[in-house]
Amino acid sequence: MPLIHECVVTTLTPEGRPHIAPLGLIEEGDHWIAAPFRPSTTLFNLEHGRKFTASFTDDARVFAGLVTGTRSFPLTDIDGWPAPRLSCALAHAELEIDHVEADELRPRFFCRVRHMESHRPFLGMNRARSAVLEAAILATRLGRLSHEKIENELAYLTIAIEKTAGSAEREAWDMVMEKIRAHLASA
Amino acid sequence: MPLIHECVVTTLTPEGRPHIAPLGLIEEGDHWIAAPFRPSTTLFNLEHGRKFTASFTDDARVFAGLVTGTRSFPLTDIDGWPAPRLSCALAHAELEIDHVEADELRPRFFCRVRHMESHRPFLGMNRARSAVLEAAILATRLGRLSHEKIENELAYLTIAIEKTAGSAEREAWDMVMEKIRAHLASA
Repeated sequence: MPLIHECVVTTLTPEGRPHIAPLGLIEEGDHWIAAPFRPSTTLFNLEHGRKFTASFTDDARVFAGLVTGTRSFPLTDIDGWPAPRLSCALAHAELEIDHVEADELRPRFFCRVRHMESHRPFLGMNRARSAVLEAAILATRLGRLSHEKIENELAYLTIAIEKTAGSAEREAWDMVMEKIRAHLASA
Repeated sequence: MPLIHECVVTTLTPEGRPHIAPLGLIEEGDHWIAAPFRPSTTLFNLEHGRKFTASFTDDARVFAGLVTGTRSFPLTDIDGWPAPRLSCALAHAELEIDHVEADELRPRFFCRVRHMESHRPFLGMNRARSAVLEAAILATRLGRLSHEKIENELAYLTIAIEKTAGSAEREAWDMVMEKIRAHLASA
């Protein structure tokens, strides 16, 4: 039963340029494991550098943006660490690869957490944010799901949006819905 | 579109004893609003004292415990503030009632946030924790829902549990499931 932390990782290209991507980091004993599917820029970068950063945020607009094509989130440099963090992060972790389990499709990078730091207070779970995260994940799997399954899931998630969303969550929801509605209309 | 922060509030009885309860605090402009339904101990306490504390946690066992009868979570005193916080809180807010909108069923206590403080880093959203929160809310509304609706919702939430739960989330899920299964078996 490994806990999955949904976060945004910043890896570095061989030239040192930061690349951000959403990733679920797996906590297993003393290690945190990054296991992106091949091919991906994050995976390529992890094969070429040992240090990266995980940013922890509950801002639904970040997850909505990342699955709908926005990658221009402001970054903040970290003293003494090469990979920057999301400026909006509530906290971040500095991760260093310890060893790798090779795999054709999905290698597992076992990491040590070198340092963790809080930047602003966590202000409680919010059901609408969780609904946006679920919809964002759904939006990455549209081709593999029936329209009925997609519509049923959206109907369920809409309840939390209507009851608990603020304007940021509504904005995030609309971004993801635009992508999903376009898929449903085109198919 | 008011954002709802799911939290655990500590109010004080007229004798000064702390009482904890789960509550969704509504953020509206400069105010945070507590709007518990009558009758409740939290509401009674808010009518008799202006100061209370909101604890922010993403520990699924807290929400699972609160809807299944556990209220013995360790509390930590706050310097210069009468209502303690949950010891496990990632952060807390000290709230003072500014004015009240009276209502027979559900008065609204408009509060100012006097102080907020982080205690440990937020380590990312987790889909299983959100699923436990949804199931915990479901467990408070069982009498108003059909068995089919309950079973459908559990089937959906189970997916996130199976994919992303750690042992704490699994424990929390099992607590809530025990309550829901007992309801389904008895009815």
